[in-house]
Amino acid sequence: MANFDLMRQLAKPEGGKMILLILDGLGGLPLEVDGLTELESATTPNLDRLAREGSNGLSIPIALGIEPGSGPGHLALFGYDPLFFDVGRGALEAAGAGLDLREGDVVARGNFATIDQNGLISDRRAGRISTEQGEKACASLAEITLPGVELTVKEVKEHRFAIRLRGQGLDPRILDTDPLEVGKAPLSAEPMSEAKNDPAAQHTAALINAFLEQARVKLASHHPANFANLRGFAGDPALPKFQDVYKLNAACVAVYPMYQGVSRLVGMDVIETTAHDTPLDEFQRVEANWDKYDFFFVHIKYTDSRGEDGKFAEKAAVIEQVDAALPALLDLQPDVLCVSGDHSTPAKLMSHSFHPVPTLIWAPQRHMRDRVTSFGEREALAGALGQFSATDLMPLLLAHAGRLARYGA
Amino acid sequence: MANFDLMRQLAKPEGGKMILLILDGLGGLPLEVDGLTELESATTPNLDRLAREGSNGLSIPIALGIEPGSGPGHLALFGYDPLFFDVGRGALEAAGAGLDLREGDVVARGNFATIDQNGLISDRRAGRISTEQGEKACASLAEITLPGVELTVKEVKEHRFAIRLRGQGLDPRILDTDPLEVGKAPLSAEPMSEAKNDPAAQHTAALINAFLEQARVKLASHHPANFANLRGFAGDPALPKFQDVYKLNAACVAVYPMYQGVSRLVGMDVIETTAHDTPLDEFQRVEANWDKYDFFFVHIKYTDSRGEDGKFAEKAAVIEQVDAALPALLDLQPDVLCVSGDHSTPAKLMSHSFHPVPTLIWAPQRHMRDRVTSFGEREALAGALGQFSATDLMPLLLAHAGRLARYGA
Repeated sequence: MANFDLMRQLAKPEGGKMILLILDGLGGLPLEVDGLTELESATTPNLDRLAREGSNGLSIPIALGIEPGSGPGHLALFGYDPLFFDVGRGALEAAGAGLDLREGDVVARGNFATIDQNGLISDRRAGRISTEQGEKACASLAEITLPGVELTVKEVKEHRFAIRLRGQGLDPRILDTDPLEVGKAPLSAEPMSEAKNDPAAQHTAALINAFLEQARVKLASHHPANFANLRGFAGDPALPKFQDVYKLNAACVAVYPMYQGVSRLVGMDVIETTAHDTPLDEFQRVEANWDKYDFFFVHIKYTDSRGEDGKFAEKAAVIEQVDAALPALLDLQPDVLCVSGDHSTPAKLMSHSFHPVPTLIWAPQRHMRDRVTSFGEREALAGALGQFSATDLMPLLLAHAGRLARYGA
Repeated sequence: MANFDLMRQLAKPEGGKMILLILDGLGGLPLEVDGLTELESATTPNLDRLAREGSNGLSIPIALGIEPGSGPGHLALFGYDPLFFDVGRGALEAAGAGLDLREGDVVARGNFATIDQNGLISDRRAGRISTEQGEKACASLAEITLPGVELTVKEVKEHRFAIRLRGQGLDPRILDTDPLEVGKAPLSAEPMSEAKNDPAAQHTAALINAFLEQARVKLASHHPANFANLRGFAGDPALPKFQDVYKLNAACVAVYPMYQGVSRLVGMDVIETTAHDTPLDEFQRVEANWDKYDFFFVHIKYTDSRGEDGKFAEKAAVIEQVDAALPALLDLQPDVLCVSGDHSTPAKLMSHSFHPVPTLIWAPQRHMRDRVTSFGEREALAGALGQFSATDLMPLLLAHAGRLARYGA
């Protein structure tokens, strides 16, 4: 993990301007024994030039052999060891849904469900209603009022949504209300055993039960989404913030709410995007905000999506699309441009994987040029950065930007 | 160290079948400045093919610069940081002698010694009697009876043996009875100072003293092995078990009791072998048990023995013998085949050494082919696995077998 005490001590509020360009699930595997990976087979003249001029290596997201989820993968890239910072699922889901989280808030993941005339659950996913239906059901839930707290309800996707309670004296140590089986009645909210005598937890459970009671009424007309189960209650994970730890005024450019959410949790501003933004659109948003921030996290989703779909050529095509748009970033003359991924998603496996992720740091003032001649998994093995823990990336980037003071005399 | 909490959380009980083939003391050194190592000079078409197709790297057994003993070397390969899991010498010796260890047992290493007519030690190794003489002396010791405990005595080699007490209320915190100098009388067993008021330690010391008193009588006719000193009292190290941590049903195929012992301590079944098994014999024992286990640890001893003897060509010949037998393992179509060593034993040094150990992982579904063209120390430096801690090997192997769930969402 980035040593936050050391970063707080050494990070300077001035220095070079930085771009961290993350191609989600960048790393891949060859389909055939003699084959190339997606990245190796893509035609990427711009990335190849950066790799040739700069330093290359491979990032180990969590630990050797561990396949990361997207949340932990990004926390690691930002310097937060996901094995240490246990960010509750509710917090990631809520952040992912675009709900910001402050100290004292309680969030949870919600699933719309179907209950029968006896009040027993007949479908835990409400027949996987469409996102449009989910949005309508969320709008009804948002009409619920609870004494002394502000309630926010946000659709995530299909039957999934997130809620946030904001107010005084709340505690997230609440058990899931989802009985996890059909044919059972939904559970009442109860404090966890460790918190069962805690007034804040009791108060929060009572509020959740009041919410569920009103939800039954509000959702009656939304069959099959005529009830809701809640789980993964979580508070603000209280992650150290980029401004505090790294002295960085940082912004996120990402299309998916999940990545915007994680960015918010570490103190980045989120620059508005649309769901249809191309890589070039995203880069132009960086350009439009170039003077306002020291650090830009730019997230490209579709490398991962195509990998998950098992579409090797299409994943390579996304990489080519990014490469073609890259001059828009280079024209900004960043002092540090890093291209990496949060994990590998080989089309061959149709899944995230444990494989280390090719990474380049291009920073003409400070990079050590190595003998790598193109951007790719096997070339990077010979690079100046070696194989390193993803949580060491931020100190490396700050160093390349001249933003870290000397340690000791 | 493999993060056991994480492994317990992520390891799946299903997935690919795995073989970990350990050539003891595999790593070597060139004899001449321009020379090759034992492994590099051996003709190994099968290992070279696996290296060419798979991922290569170098395993660091304990820490940079540290020369491992066989016990710690294997614990590390199995994922147990030997700096954290302090397995008493008595436990390794007993396990090595084939004594299994259960909670509550007390074991110790024994040395036959010679005492003179005044009861003073004249030879702490009893003239290094033969193993056959040692076995006879052990048979006499095994006739000793102690109240309320079951005594087991097992010859190790020459003047060395191991004992085990099994019963209620025992404590291994007992000082060595070996005075470590000739011309002195053997010591009585005493509790360690930290345990001197502990009834179980006092009881155990009394049992050991009763054992030593009877040993003097039983061994009188075995001159020069007419007495015995005991040291390294130890209990069950209570290592987490493979089944619990990795969800693996694992078996050991090894010729030497020491390696069978360490395997037992981590919860593997030990498949019966003979002292004369060749590598091919060992591989055929894997074949005979192929359907019964998920994971096979196969141990080849003689690479280390020839290295310790300083016999460079003979060590290379053992490697060639393994290579020639390898099709017997490949015919089983394992999902993961890893070839490595517990440490280096360069013939040049006639000793274990600190040098990282060449390692290949061949797992066609998931390995990243690198640019390594043959199996060897210098080639492995360019490999996809880099240099890694031996304790990370098990997570890597599980990952290559598709046996680890994703970490986080």
